[in-house]
Amino acid sequence: MRNRQWLLARRPSGSVDLDDFEFAEADMPEPELKPGEILVNNLAFHLAPTMRNWMNDSSRSYRASVGLGTPVIGPGAAVVVRSAHAKWPVGTRLLGVSRWEDYSVLDPDNSPTLFVPVPEQFTVTEALGVFGLNSLTAHVGLNQVGRPKPGETVVVSAAAGSVGSMACQIARLQGCRVIGIAGGPDKCAWLVGTCGIDAAIDYKNEDVSRRLKDLCPDGVDVFFDNVGGPILHAVMDNIAPKGRVAVCGQVSAYDSDEPAPGPRDMMRVVYWRVRIEGFVLGDFPDKVPAARDDIVRWVRDGKIVHREDIRQGFGQLPSAFLDLFTGRNEGTLMVVNDEVAAPR
Amino acid sequence: MRNRQWLLARRPSGSVDLDDFEFAEADMPEPELKPGEILVNNLAFHLAPTMRNWMNDSSRSYRASVGLGTPVIGPGAAVVVRSAHAKWPVGTRLLGVSRWEDYSVLDPDNSPTLFVPVPEQFTVTEALGVFGLNSLTAHVGLNQVGRPKPGETVVVSAAAGSVGSMACQIARLQGCRVIGIAGGPDKCAWLVGTCGIDAAIDYKNEDVSRRLKDLCPDGVDVFFDNVGGPILHAVMDNIAPKGRVAVCGQVSAYDSDEPAPGPRDMMRVVYWRVRIEGFVLGDFPDKVPAARDDIVRWVRDGKIVHREDIRQGFGQLPSAFLDLFTGRNEGTLMVVNDEVAAPR
Repeated sequence: MRNRQWLLARRPSGSVDLDDFEFAEADMPEPELKPGEILVNNLAFHLAPTMRNWMNDSSRSYRASVGLGTPVIGPGAAVVVRSAHAKWPVGTRLLGVSRWEDYSVLDPDNSPTLFVPVPEQFTVTEALGVFGLNSLTAHVGLNQVGRPKPGETVVVSAAAGSVGSMACQIARLQGCRVIGIAGGPDKCAWLVGTCGIDAAIDYKNEDVSRRLKDLCPDGVDVFFDNVGGPILHAVMDNIAPKGRVAVCGQVSAYDSDEPAPGPRDMMRVVYWRVRIEGFVLGDFPDKVPAARDDIVRWVRDGKIVHREDIRQGFGQLPSAFLDLFTGRNEGTLMVVNDEVAAPR
Repeated sequence: MRNRQWLLARRPSGSVDLDDFEFAEADMPEPELKPGEILVNNLAFHLAPTMRNWMNDSSRSYRASVGLGTPVIGPGAAVVVRSAHAKWPVGTRLLGVSRWEDYSVLDPDNSPTLFVPVPEQFTVTEALGVFGLNSLTAHVGLNQVGRPKPGETVVVSAAAGSVGSMACQIARLQGCRVIGIAGGPDKCAWLVGTCGIDAAIDYKNEDVSRRLKDLCPDGVDVFFDNVGGPILHAVMDNIAPKGRVAVCGQVSAYDSDEPAPGPRDMMRVVYWRVRIEGFVLGDFPDKVPAARDDIVRWVRDGKIVHREDIRQGFGQLPSAFLDLFTGRNEGTLMVVNDEVAAPR
């Protein structure tokens, strides 16, 4: 048996391309594990835009970037198939940063990233998807960083995306007026019709700043920003006094050689007393359990809708990843592995 | 008797110029006051860089800009010389936004800006200067917005200025490591030698980003920014994880037709979880008394040094104002009026 892998063949220049990835079949890991190690079968991979940043060289990445010729990394779910670690017995399902390969040897106690067990009541795609990082990021970023009060106006960019649609709906459930910014009439119709937010702006066909001015005559109280660039600028033109910008991501710049700049006029930040704050979910471990409880309850009560875009088969990974940057996915994008180790 | 005035003759284009101001001698205000009005003699004017913004048209100002052909406005101290308001009897000294003229009729209860009495123990230049807006802005901005902890590294731009030198010294007194950025070796020597901060960077003669990298290998925890532009960018290149930027002003852009842009790479804000927050003193009225008490105590105990640059005579106003933008003032810049109403 061979261990299939998708390697980073070269650093993407501008838009990520299929030729940036290389398929390989490596030897299976050595059968002998060192004490503390586990062998896992990677069951599902979550494709997140931020992974594009990890493919840059380390000068533009906040973590060690993916080494050339090594497997791509991203959030994933796996199951332990061989174990030399008492806390991770065979059959344990876990979430963490996975390599794009069928099988990996992990050393959970000495890993730079955290592995957590999949809660028993969740499937791996639920754990990676609706109850996973994206939903938790939306909840924690909105409430710990943006901190909207009921009645305030919340604007979300990439609003039809996996994080954005969750942020929209959580804000709505908490009594805010919610405006989403998304690309295309279908996404906008889904946001208003299905997610129940107050209005949506189609940035591909509308003047975002002008529409915001019409929709938010008193300004935008909280902006949950996944996109940056011109959309950030349009929102800053309409920010309310004491407005808050929770900076979750800047996807407008990920698939590019140019970083996304901040506000064009910092005096607006001074005079309007705006707070602009970046965040990562990992800073709020103590907020995660309650956030997950909220999301589980809302989903089970039918108060939140969630879309998943699940592709079948390890071979789909690179092409699915490219879809993230062309708007061709609808909802949380996952690839389920077609190599599943026989139970033993 | 005539009422001398300095009018805004035209909106400055780029650098402010003497020809942007026009001297006038108006009639004295009507002797009859309406109920609630007071006639004041303007005793001293504080010249602050932000006044330059108020000279732009209102699209770039957060408050009503100075009307063309009307007196320039700025912080000032005055004394009541005639009164039709029981709470403001003749002889009361007050602080507020003044017009550049010898005498003004004010309607304190219906003014868009607040007037406060000068505390009895202060001279008007003390009240406008060391115990005035600039010092309070430094204290409140540093502690309510930047919130450095003892042992953290605080960087201050325009560090030898009126706000900046106070921010530097308050941070030092609170146990922080303090690095000031200022223009020229004299200002830097004063900051280290007299203000007692840990290091100073001469932005006119040194590479700010490289010096910060050397001085702050673990990054800048709090940046108190008065300047913006390239200096903000240099600090952002060296910001620490969870760094905070208290945005007080952006003087690099005041005397220009171009606004000062924000960070060049917002992903740095995300990954480093940076908080960038603008503020104005007026948002913290409840913090002012304790801040003033601190400053009074530190000054009286000799723990803080403060420089004042006091010019004599109403005629000095425009030329003194220009000095703010060429670094020719040393300390809080004030002009004391040479027209003082006879006591009556």
